[in-house]
Amino acid sequence: MTAVTVAPPSPNLALNQLVDRRRAEGASLVHLAFGEARLPVLPQLAEQLALGAARACYGPVAGAEGVRDAVAGYFTRRRLPTEADRVIVAPGSKPLLMALQLVIPGDVLLPRPAWNTYAPQARYAGKKVYGVPIPAECGGVPAPGALRETIRRARAAGADPRLLVLTLPDNPTGTLAPPALIRELCALARAEDLLIISDEIYRDIVHDPESTPFLSPAEAAPERTVVTSGLSKTLGLGGWRIGVARFPVGETGALLRDAVTAAASELWSTLAGPMQQVAEYAYAEPPEVLARMRASARLHGAVARAVHRIALEAGAECRPPTGGFYVYPDFAPLRDRLAARGVTDAASLAGRLLDDSGIAVLAGHLLGDDPQALRFKAATSLLYGDERQQHQALRADDPARLPHITRELSRIAQGFARLKGA
Amino acid sequence: MTAVTVAPPSPNLALNQLVDRRRAEGASLVHLAFGEARLPVLPQLAEQLALGAARACYGPVAGAEGVRDAVAGYFTRRRLPTEADRVIVAPGSKPLLMALQLVIPGDVLLPRPAWNTYAPQARYAGKKVYGVPIPAECGGVPAPGALRETIRRARAAGADPRLLVLTLPDNPTGTLAPPALIRELCALARAEDLLIISDEIYRDIVHDPESTPFLSPAEAAPERTVVTSGLSKTLGLGGWRIGVARFPVGETGALLRDAVTAAASELWSTLAGPMQQVAEYAYAEPPEVLARMRASARLHGAVARAVHRIALEAGAECRPPTGGFYVYPDFAPLRDRLAARGVTDAASLAGRLLDDSGIAVLAGHLLGDDPQALRFKAATSLLYGDERQQHQALRADDPARLPHITRELSRIAQGFARLKGA
Repeated sequence: MTAVTVAPPSPNLALNQLVDRRRAEGASLVHLAFGEARLPVLPQLAEQLALGAARACYGPVAGAEGVRDAVAGYFTRRRLPTEADRVIVAPGSKPLLMALQLVIPGDVLLPRPAWNTYAPQARYAGKKVYGVPIPAECGGVPAPGALRETIRRARAAGADPRLLVLTLPDNPTGTLAPPALIRELCALARAEDLLIISDEIYRDIVHDPESTPFLSPAEAAPERTVVTSGLSKTLGLGGWRIGVARFPVGETGALLRDAVTAAASELWSTLAGPMQQVAEYAYAEPPEVLARMRASARLHGAVARAVHRIALEAGAECRPPTGGFYVYPDFAPLRDRLAARGVTDAASLAGRLLDDSGIAVLAGHLLGDDPQALRFKAATSLLYGDERQQHQALRADDPARLPHITRELSRIAQGFARLKGA
Repeated sequence: MTAVTVAPPSPNLALNQLVDRRRAEGASLVHLAFGEARLPVLPQLAEQLALGAARACYGPVAGAEGVRDAVAGYFTRRRLPTEADRVIVAPGSKPLLMALQLVIPGDVLLPRPAWNTYAPQARYAGKKVYGVPIPAECGGVPAPGALRETIRRARAAGADPRLLVLTLPDNPTGTLAPPALIRELCALARAEDLLIISDEIYRDIVHDPESTPFLSPAEAAPERTVVTSGLSKTLGLGGWRIGVARFPVGETGALLRDAVTAAASELWSTLAGPMQQVAEYAYAEPPEVLARMRASARLHGAVARAVHRIALEAGAECRPPTGGFYVYPDFAPLRDRLAARGVTDAASLAGRLLDDSGIAVLAGHLLGDDPQALRFKAATSLLYGDERQQHQALRADDPARLPHITRELSRIAQGFARLKGA
């Protein structure tokens, strides 16, 4: 019978299901392998969902005018002046990213490491993928020199890199590329005629916005940058599947918008009506939504910084997290000691943490990183406990000192320390 | 700047938006161009949606066990014994159909005409599309002789047809392929090693189930048939985006299921949690859901048959509708009279109906049919009036005689008659 080739499933979702299964069997695990912002649903959003029940017609593919207006307002308040006709809403940002990869010609350039979905989507779209090392200071963007060199080599080999994907703030490193670097990359994109996807789904989770200036590539290269975002991270609504895209002004932007709308009409029709009602409400940013966004950014920052400290204390190198809810430690300084214990690469490092200490992390090679490097992603957003404890954590002055979070952090500290035989 | 090619958007969704815009400008149109089952949302389903608000975690890609159990029960009650592990739920059946086209190798065979989304999805997946004429008796399936001949020619030309898409009951012809024909096609698929997608989203809208036996290709060729379905048509929930797929028993089925799950994990993550709650409830088929399904099948049948009579009276040929809410008239018998009035093909036929009579239909060539043929699809499911009138129509013994529906039918009769200069 016709043979079907099975790609591996998205490793973060697969690990999450594995952790759920092991826990159901009674295992006690620390779950650092899944980027879900597990926080309580705001009651006002639940109310909007219920009110949206009557929206059972298909409606416009890009979303009703009301929700696109609200999203346009959201971007406009972030120094990205936006008209509703440049917005598409969708069931998550994944379908939007996939549609962009389908309609943008040529091959794709990714930071290395990068979120584990960009590369498989590129392959479904028939694109070649070029991973470019990130700078020492931050992730989510390629180092400019390495990017220039990769483009040159790719073209020499007959490839056609046309799309650059950036993540601000970054998943997996939990860092935000600084404005000067963004300007340099945007100038390079212009010189090399690359389109840019700027994945800004963590934009509202900058831990200390005062000291961490945010420049969107859509400000520096407005004519060629599509911004994607959604409510999964900021408002803890991963399971509601609400994503948005903002298309550039000008002719290329209009073409891209039309091409993605056409793809949307064939691939998913539209975002479910009740979810459009939720999005229309949330993107208008009423006071309780803004308050939740501030409180959760503070909470994510406090716990990510605590895990960062633990990684450093264990002897790893690690960029300080400034956005999102991730740290990405590098155990290279302990390579010899780890090798003596059979840990020689990303896979064995993650495997050892799971087997010895019940700590689930996402090995770096699953994010496109060098398989030999001793790196992994630790997502810190599932450490907040049950719903009552999550409320407590959102309110706490120093959430890392709450007993239920301290307990998780201690297990992480013990597990990381145990790696080197401590 | 990098040039982006824009595919035309899905023509039914595009026409729907055009009709909405013209109506907003004050035009009085009869909308036969969109397959939306516009009926009131059952209050019990709205209640489930609200109850599902707490489901804000991502959860398993294929859907939670509860909803997959319920869907398995639904299929099992339809002579398709199903375990929950062979079910995937998704935001509509479109993403599932797209994922299937991405993971199944080779090229695709479609009935001609067919629903307008199969062919664009195939092109996004890099497949060649072969349209095969339908038999005289029904649509949704290719005529077996023509299918054999198309496969032979495609292979001779170096193509690799591996996938056959069937629609039961059919959109656009509103007919159901009889069991004998399904058996013949399944035997052919087996002999030629084709996988089958059986799109059964209209399965519960067979107008007179007693006299119209339904045989699923998944009964006749269980080892190679994937069934797709959803709640959009049966329960009027197009805007809620709930789709399902049932995978075959055996090894190929497991591989296909795993491949689609992997694609789903990268393309859309999962169906929104609150929608999973709705689906879990609806697929268990409590009494009010069954009653609504029966009432709406009766209503759709009565109005589709009325439009069928009108088409015959206007001089067209037309297969009698037996499922769904479509008729697909052929004005070939009037070709000379229409040509004298400048109507020479599908596009000018649909254009004339819209311009002269304010009747929006979907021209046959937009469904892959011969552009020269004088055929179009008329969707009859938007003729039921406002919500109060929809309730009335669901209860009526003879809905076609309700004044608000009679008025629409009269306009259609006048418009069709006007085509030949009456």
